[in-house]
Amino acid sequence: MRRFEHGGDIYTHPGVLDFSANINPMGMPDAAKRALVEGLDGFERYPDPASQKLTEAIAHFEHLKQEEVLACAGATDAFARVCLAAKPKRALACAPCYSGYEQACEQAGADLTWHELRHADGFRVTERFAECIDKDVDLVFIANPNNPTGLRVSEGIIRSCLMRAREAGAVVVLDECFVDLAGGGGSNALLHEFENLVIVKALTKTYALAGLRVGYALSSNKELLSAMRAAGQPWAVSVPAQLAGVASLQDEGYLAKSQELVARERERLSAALLGLGLHVLPSDASYLLFEGPEGLYERLLRRRILIRPCDNFRGLGNRWYRVAVRSFEEDEQLIGALGVLSQGWDEGERAGGEA
Amino acid sequence: MRRFEHGGDIYTHPGVLDFSANINPMGMPDAAKRALVEGLDGFERYPDPASQKLTEAIAHFEHLKQEEVLACAGATDAFARVCLAAKPKRALACAPCYSGYEQACEQAGADLTWHELRHADGFRVTERFAECIDKDVDLVFIANPNNPTGLRVSEGIIRSCLMRAREAGAVVVLDECFVDLAGGGGSNALLHEFENLVIVKALTKTYALAGLRVGYALSSNKELLSAMRAAGQPWAVSVPAQLAGVASLQDEGYLAKSQELVARERERLSAALLGLGLHVLPSDASYLLFEGPEGLYERLLRRRILIRPCDNFRGLGNRWYRVAVRSFEEDEQLIGALGVLSQGWDEGERAGGEA
Repeated sequence: MRRFEHGGDIYTHPGVLDFSANINPMGMPDAAKRALVEGLDGFERYPDPASQKLTEAIAHFEHLKQEEVLACAGATDAFARVCLAAKPKRALACAPCYSGYEQACEQAGADLTWHELRHADGFRVTERFAECIDKDVDLVFIANPNNPTGLRVSEGIIRSCLMRAREAGAVVVLDECFVDLAGGGGSNALLHEFENLVIVKALTKTYALAGLRVGYALSSNKELLSAMRAAGQPWAVSVPAQLAGVASLQDEGYLAKSQELVARERERLSAALLGLGLHVLPSDASYLLFEGPEGLYERLLRRRILIRPCDNFRGLGNRWYRVAVRSFEEDEQLIGALGVLSQGWDEGERAGGEA
Repeated sequence: MRRFEHGGDIYTHPGVLDFSANINPMGMPDAAKRALVEGLDGFERYPDPASQKLTEAIAHFEHLKQEEVLACAGATDAFARVCLAAKPKRALACAPCYSGYEQACEQAGADLTWHELRHADGFRVTERFAECIDKDVDLVFIANPNNPTGLRVSEGIIRSCLMRAREAGAVVVLDECFVDLAGGGGSNALLHEFENLVIVKALTKTYALAGLRVGYALSSNKELLSAMRAAGQPWAVSVPAQLAGVASLQDEGYLAKSQELVARERERLSAALLGLGLHVLPSDASYLLFEGPEGLYERLLRRRILIRPCDNFRGLGNRWYRVAVRSFEEDEQLIGALGVLSQGWDEGERAGGEA
């Protein structure tokens, strides 16, 4: 039985090789581990509610002003805060996408309308999405790259959404949690052009700090950031989260090495899955979405490998799976296990009947 | 300038002796420190959203069933969740009390009505409070012992409140964050008698884990606990919070030693303050509320001692201060500094003109 909605259920299945959570395969930076051990006595005291040192480090990393940064307890805290602060009546998001947007809307009493991405478009976000933003919409979620598809949204479409949202008086929440790990650059340049833009990022994924809960929101809209600060808990970002966040952001070599690893392994893993006849979407992220035989989750779990079944993503069925890109050795284990299993697949079972 | 609403501002004033935050003077248990260092690699993975091991440890410690426990990111997270889950239109609390109740109500859109405790009653909660609970009230906050007064509420009054609240269809949130550190026992026995009761506790204070954000809610009302679980973030309790929480609760000798230290030092510190002519309230908690000369906060800060000015507690003026009970050595420093300062006080300055 799956107890976790979001993947990463290593607690029900201890000792598995986890491809279900999208976390940097390099693991936590050594600098973060050192900062945690050295700072242990400070865990006794209340955290700095302003997260001064962390927001300084984020501002430096993002080339923004400190007042344009709000440190949060992971991206989910940022999504909750923006919904509680902006108080949308109606929000808009693509399907499939991260299910946390729906929870944030529910908590704030907002109705979330789904824009179904088309299989025929390869699940890409197109101008059709921007055209759905009208005066009835108060808040728009866009993920770049999208999760679970791994596809980037073009700057032109993001810009169309921002302009239509500005006309409609709506806030755009641009989830760029996977931008830094995948490389290729984010949308910070748009922050000063659009006051209705909030970019959300997660140190959780980029620096493998998932257990510490740390992320942030970026906006040039001081009023909105201030309302977001008030909308959550005063000590949301814990002492270890602040310490590890600062140390990670200052570790300059780590991110470049991570991006190289992810890019290299993504191509290798994707080619291997395609070679097995699976239908794999092209990915700009640190994970791959593919279509394969039913029951693959259970069969891999018997081989102590955990992947993310996507049947609880709106718009995907029970033949879709997401796997994180991991290290060479780990990816080899996944490829090997799939290779063995694939010998039992008939042609129709491989890629949704398309192989 | 004070940047912190709640005390504990050791970030603006690094290196001060902190009497402003009510944290166990024994510091974090060694068992918790060991668990954190040994568990460091696990900080990379998402926390168990069900906090299985932590809720098991809490249930064992509280002599309750695991399904009667909800682990939270500190007591503030529990207060926020109960308000978001119970959706009160009108809530009731005593003044003075912890300002976090007001924030939790605001976030949930509830109006909070204040019941002013009387100076003439020594700020005790009396039957007058229970009598304010009528059909217009949906949620009632009671702190036992109260903060910042340090006074316990009698079981008879808690029971009256619960009965009137039950008739009114209201939930009672009983904040027993300071019960375990002060000793004397809490109100768990009432949980099975009253389905409208939620008891909130904080490992933050009891085990000096303030930087980790960990606390819990107890109730026999499974429907309400389940709504509280859904009302916050799925991974609110971080990996280090869960690890340190379990290790602390299992450290059997630590709590008894802490209670002895707090009881002994509370009597000593209280006697010393009374000896200086200050007006000190009798306390059942790990802190003391006293009335003294205006400007005492600033004068002690110049001597690198941080206390909690109570002018932002509703119902208290700018001559009230709260100090945490600390270790013998730390308390000696506070007593010494107050002794020096007191030589400059005239009679009227000591205890609100009463000395």
